[in-house]
Amino acid sequence: MKKVLMKGNEAIGEAAIRAGCLNYFAYPITPQSEVAEYLSKRMPEVGGVFLQGESEVAVGYMIFGAAACGARVFTTSSSPGISLMSEAISYIAGAECPAVFVNIMRGGPGLGGILPSQGDYLQATKGGGHGDYRMLVMAPASVQEAAEMVMQAFPLAEKYRNPVMILGDGLIGQMMEPVMFPDHLRTEPSNKDAWATNGMDTRRSDKRNLVKSLYLDPNVLNAQNLKLKAKYEQMKREEIRFEAYHTEASYEALIVSYGTMSRVCKTAIDNLKEEGIEIGLIRPQTLFPFPEMAIRQACDRPECRVVLSIEMSMGQMLEDVERSVQGKKPVEWYGKCGGEVPTPEEVMDVVRSFLKQYGKE
Amino acid sequence: MKKVLMKGNEAIGEAAIRAGCLNYFAYPITPQSEVAEYLSKRMPEVGGVFLQGESEVAVGYMIFGAAACGARVFTTSSSPGISLMSEAISYIAGAECPAVFVNIMRGGPGLGGILPSQGDYLQATKGGGHGDYRMLVMAPASVQEAAEMVMQAFPLAEKYRNPVMILGDGLIGQMMEPVMFPDHLRTEPSNKDAWATNGMDTRRSDKRNLVKSLYLDPNVLNAQNLKLKAKYEQMKREEIRFEAYHTEASYEALIVSYGTMSRVCKTAIDNLKEEGIEIGLIRPQTLFPFPEMAIRQACDRPECRVVLSIEMSMGQMLEDVERSVQGKKPVEWYGKCGGEVPTPEEVMDVVRSFLKQYGKE
Amino acid sequence: MKKVLMKGNEAIGEAAIRAGCLNYFAYPITPQSEVAEYLSKRMPEVGGVFLQGESEVAVGYMIFGAAACGARVFTTSSSPGISLMSEAISYIAGAECPAVFVNIMRGGPGLGGILPSQGDYLQATKGGGHGDYRMLVMAPASVQEAAEMVMQAFPLAEKYRNPVMILGDGLIGQMMEPVMFPDHLRTEPSNKDAWATNGMDTRRSDKRNLVKSLYLDPNVLNAQNLKLKAKYEQMKREEIRFEAYHTEASYEALIVSYGTMSRVCKTAIDNLKEEGIEIGLIRPQTLFPFPEMAIRQACDRPECRVVLSIEMSMGQMLEDVERSVQGKKPVEWYGKCGGEVPTPEEVMDVVRSFLKQYGKE
Amino acid sequence: MKKVLMKGNEAIGEAAIRAGCLNYFAYPITPQSEVAEYLSKRMPEVGGVFLQGESEVAVGYMIFGAAACGARVFTTSSSPGISLMSEAISYIAGAECPAVFVNIMRGGPGLGGILPSQGDYLQATKGGGHGDYRMLVMAPASVQEAAEMVMQAFPLAEKYRNPVMILGDGLIGQMMEPVMFPDHLRTEPSNKDAWATNGMDTRRSDKRNLVKSLYLDPNVLNAQNLKLKAKYEQMKREEIRFEAYHTEASYEALIVSYGTMSRVCKTAIDNLKEEGIEIGLIRPQTLFPFPEMAIRQACDRPECRVVLSIEMSMGQMLEDVERSVQGKKPVEWYGKCGGEVPTPEEVMDVVRSFLKQYGKE
Repeated sequence: MKKVLMKGNEAIGEAAIRAGCLNYFAYPITPQSEVAEYLSKRMPEVGGVFLQGESEVAVGYMIFGAAACGARVFTTSSSPGISLMSEAISYIAGAECPAVFVNIMRGGPGLGGILPSQGDYLQATKGGGHGDYRMLVMAPASVQEAAEMVMQAFPLAEKYRNPVMILGDGLIGQMMEPVMFPDHLRTEPSNKDAWATNGMDTRRSDKRNLVKSLYLDPNVLNAQNLKLKAKYEQMKREEIRFEAYHTEASYEALIVSYGTMSRVCKTAIDNLKEEGIEIGLIRPQTLFPFPEMAIRQACDRPECRVVLSIEMSMGQMLEDVERSVQGKKPVEWYGKCGGEVPTPEEVMDVVRSFLKQYGKE
Repeated sequence: MKKVLMKGNEAIGEAAIRAGCLNYFAYPITPQSEVAEYLSKRMPEVGGVFLQGESEVAVGYMIFGAAACGARVFTTSSSPGISLMSEAISYIAGAECPAVFVNIMRGGPGLGGILPSQGDYLQATKGGGHGDYRMLVMAPASVQEAAEMVMQAFPLAEKYRNPVMILGDGLIGQMMEPVMFPDHLRTEPSNKDAWATNGMDTRRSDKRNLVKSLYLDPNVLNAQNLKLKAKYEQMKREEIRFEAYHTEASYEALIVSYGTMSRVCKTAIDNLKEEGIEIGLIRPQTLFPFPEMAIRQACDRPECRVVLSIEMSMGQMLEDVERSVQGKKPVEWYGKCGGEVPTPEEVMDVVRSFLKQYGKE
Repeated sequence: MKKVLMKGNEAIGEAAIRAGCLNYFAYPITPQSEVAEYLSKRMPEVGGVFLQGESEVAVGYMIFGAAACGARVFTTSSSPGISLMSEAISYIAGAECPAVFVNIMRGGPGLGGILPSQGDYLQATKGGGHGDYRMLVMAPASVQEAAEMVMQAFPLAEKYRNPVMILGDGLIGQMMEPVMFPDHLRTEPSNKDAWATNGMDTRRSDKRNLVKSLYLDPNVLNAQNLKLKAKYEQMKREEIRFEAYHTEASYEALIVSYGTMSRVCKTAIDNLKEEGIEIGLIRPQTLFPFPEMAIRQACDRPECRVVLSIEMSMGQMLEDVERSVQGKKPVEWYGKCGGEVPTPEEVMDVVRSFLKQYGKE
Repeated sequence: MKKVLMKGNEAIGEAAIRAGCLNYFAYPITPQSEVAEYLSKRMPEVGGVFLQGESEVAVGYMIFGAAACGARVFTTSSSPGISLMSEAISYIAGAECPAVFVNIMRGGPGLGGILPSQGDYLQATKGGGHGDYRMLVMAPASVQEAAEMVMQAFPLAEKYRNPVMILGDGLIGQMMEPVMFPDHLRTEPSNKDAWATNGMDTRRSDKRNLVKSLYLDPNVLNAQNLKLKAKYEQMKREEIRFEAYHTEASYEALIVSYGTMSRVCKTAIDNLKEEGIEIGLIRPQTLFPFPEMAIRQACDRPECRVVLSIEMSMGQMLEDVERSVQGKKPVEWYGKCGGEVPTPEEVMDVVRSFLKQYGKE
């Protein structure tokens, strides 16, 4: 198990294969087209399938179709492409099929730009599609973490029979880092005979499964929604992941930040520490479920005077941070959403400025 | 100005015409197809256009096209159809064009059912599409209010050059009530020459406008996102609307509820009052911007022991309520999401049960 | 009724309006986009509708839909676009609806080129679509004739309840000539209540018509095909049109040529006459039905030693000419199909060369 | 090499595989869906690909794409589906790529019926698409012949770099007959490096080929069309195939008939012989190129008083027969086009009737 230097987008593609996923359907869009390029060559080598759909709408339903047959399947896209898959994602969640969606976010709204962004936080965590469903959303901050999260996403999708989204930004997709693919993350789907359609292959299972999201009886649909809700509550109990950085210290401010943005924040925190300013960081690794309790407790420390949501979006995570903080401390936002990642210096200035604003009495 | 008895869906169609909107593009879906049926006959009578697109994806872009030309334009759809318009809505917001979307929600996720629901709260308020944008979302609780909100939606969309959504449920669309269309709500678009494309009609304007959402320069895109953010902040200052019901009393619990669900809650509140139990209600009429401050203040009353988010969804509004309450009072949820509207008796039971749980010491 | 100088494509658009057709659906393609450009402005002025479909496939079915409702409707396209309408044309013929298709041919096959051609003769006359149907095909040789044929096409389509095609080449579409639109060619559809669907408008007709092309009973489908065949036989009796040029002389060769190509042939014939060489010309104005008998008789003149099919295609009309000539005289082909129209000098050379080959004994 | 009892549609699918074609793209339509059903299971077994397109328009271009890469590829469809592929077929011919199309004809026009027909003769032989191109068209009369023709179609398509069509009727597709797949008909594509794109696989060929049908220079496009024309002339010299039945006798009438219809005619001829009436038959096995000379010579026999084109269409082959006969003998048509195949008795009656009409003086 040795490390290889890979671009994030390639590592994402390779990770899916290493996880045991041999079905990849996609439609090209900057800045994630390298995944498709990589897998167009790699999938045939491993006996897998790469199929380009005629649009993202089609890809969403190709994913649904494969998932309904019990196949491990995933797609990658970027912001506008994910919007076009919104209806299908809702159908997949409603029909309780497992599938993995990777969103390498670009600047929005609309065409926006092709540079990195975190502008799809709300779409990913609150549901771009219609109806009462959620996706389990994981946000990597390095190529290695992206690879591992992709590998973990498949068994998680199958555990919950629900779509899982890897929410990366363009930088994660484009940067090169050494990466390894842990063998123990290679898994086998275990339970698909219980629910997947199996065509005419009676050797596989003689159970006749029906995959659907239509429930015309209101009591049955309500029960189905309560069942889904119970799964999302279970996610909140079992799947929350976050990194606490420098929270052993007596920090004056708590930063909440994820993905590429959190790496910059860590550098800023290290630099500020040298200046004698202690700052803590909570980095959500899952965006849904959100580490509410961790943030609530971390902000409750008496020295902490302010909580900062630092994002490459215009305050999308801010609402979740506010909800977590419950009014215990002031919550402020800083961010940029055009493609340029704020520098450590910018973050340092922002922190100093807010510390001044919420100065010691 | 006299009242006529109309179905909600028909009143919505008529209201758009009375507001001065002569362009309607749509694709049929239960439970809002009556709007299309009504306007297919009515639009030609008033010199307007009804055009059925070949899909909801197409309709979204037909709306964009008409809006970009400065025409008042709207569509109606139901949950899955709105998901298919998610990309276009993001484009329209990004390009700063005014347009009105009516979502007569049905049960979800996926195909779900065809009965009433409030399951698209998060999609509507947090952004189904990608990128940093918001829609101004209004939620009527009666046919009359639906008609007025539709009429108000057009000048609001133009004021902010942003999509406005009317979020109704199937009951609002299907029920018949007496309705009138106030003449003073008929408005004229005032500023379109400043931004709309005008084809070859130089009599109208000699300004060459460009409508786009692509900004490849990250600084320009960031500035554009800050400009959008400023508009959404302005909405929060100027457009929040809510109804406070029975909040002059010393209520033991505060209900937050909207749309058809809030009507049931009012009946429950009236009945409970006869039993000697005082309950207050805040009914958001705008879901974005959300009446945070009103709820925060209303829950702060000393007698109020618990805040209840009562929805025809699985706790979608709950998060906004929690964020508003800031931990001052416990927040609980009750709801159903299958098509059946909870009865006043159910709501009364729920209230009594929570009052007991959070009983006086 | 005075002449105006117009481009062929504009004259075609105007002629349809003057004929009483207020419905035009199209998708742009060189070299006929000027029709769409012209009618996008002109149709609204006369209360008509121009609607651009999302593809030529869609346009074909929009034509079918309008025709099935009894509306006069037409489209214009160029070669590849007509191929995409092939299925719809077959459906319209099978369902016996009237509609007018204008094909301003460009070079083919495939993308080919954008310059004039006559390469769709076989597609137009033998049926690009499936099944036993024919279109009545008219081929204008001047802007004036194009305008008149368009005006005549609508009542002919209604007489036969069958698609009519105007087969022009890019030159007809692009050249400017003085044109007038004879008032007597403005007609009213007379019989649509007998077969068109009429929606809910019972004032118009209380007959419930059904428009369809599906006949699952083989005897009924055979009877329907015999009915169609009878119509095409009637066309052969009643609609054949051709121009005989210089056929009063004792010509040594007979040219068969149509459209722009025939104009060049006439100049060549005039020039050859000055050299003392007499050549006759039959110019088919209808390509289906084809003037077989006229050609058979014209080639039977004893002095006539050879029949020449001169086309801007690779021998497509040649087969019809051969069939007409019935072996009475040798039949030869000359043509070019790349966009360049053969010059009179070229035609003269070709004629001299064939006369030599088939010289007097 | 032993015979197996197979349905025609299955034999067609198996024959393609035996011929070395491992790529099959299709869209289901009665009466050929069994090919897709069969190959959906069979292709994966042999390492091939079956991919259902989202429409026949898409399938046409998937065929083009695979063919342009040098892959052996084919599709099967039925009448309306072939119409939708018309544009793509013209592109493939224009770009000189080899591909095999199987049309299992059903009754038309429009939806028509789902029973056997020969109603697409003209579409297949005269070009459903636009521009100057032809397909090589083969018409099997038995399951065995269908299998062999499919196997021969691939090397023929490659010899001419042109689409080849197998034109069968629904009966050929549905009937069961013993069939074997001759090993010597398994071939290897020989020349694709000369013209096919080869992606990044420089081991295969370092030639950079360009596949296109666009030629904007009129001289170049004309030259391309002359090159295509030369190929079609070569087909006429080298590929004409037909069966002469009972033509050694002194027949009073000559029947021209193909496919399933010709089998009925043979029975009728056998029965008539027992009555003392001698009838000859020419069965075209290629419809383009058409066996003109064979028919011309066969009808020239002095005893032959009339030529009969007997078709399951409304006189589509009649024109080619007339052209072949060159007025030497009267040509008559008999046919049915609704799905019912004429019986031997019907054909015998028809023959007797025409013999009487054209009785000996």
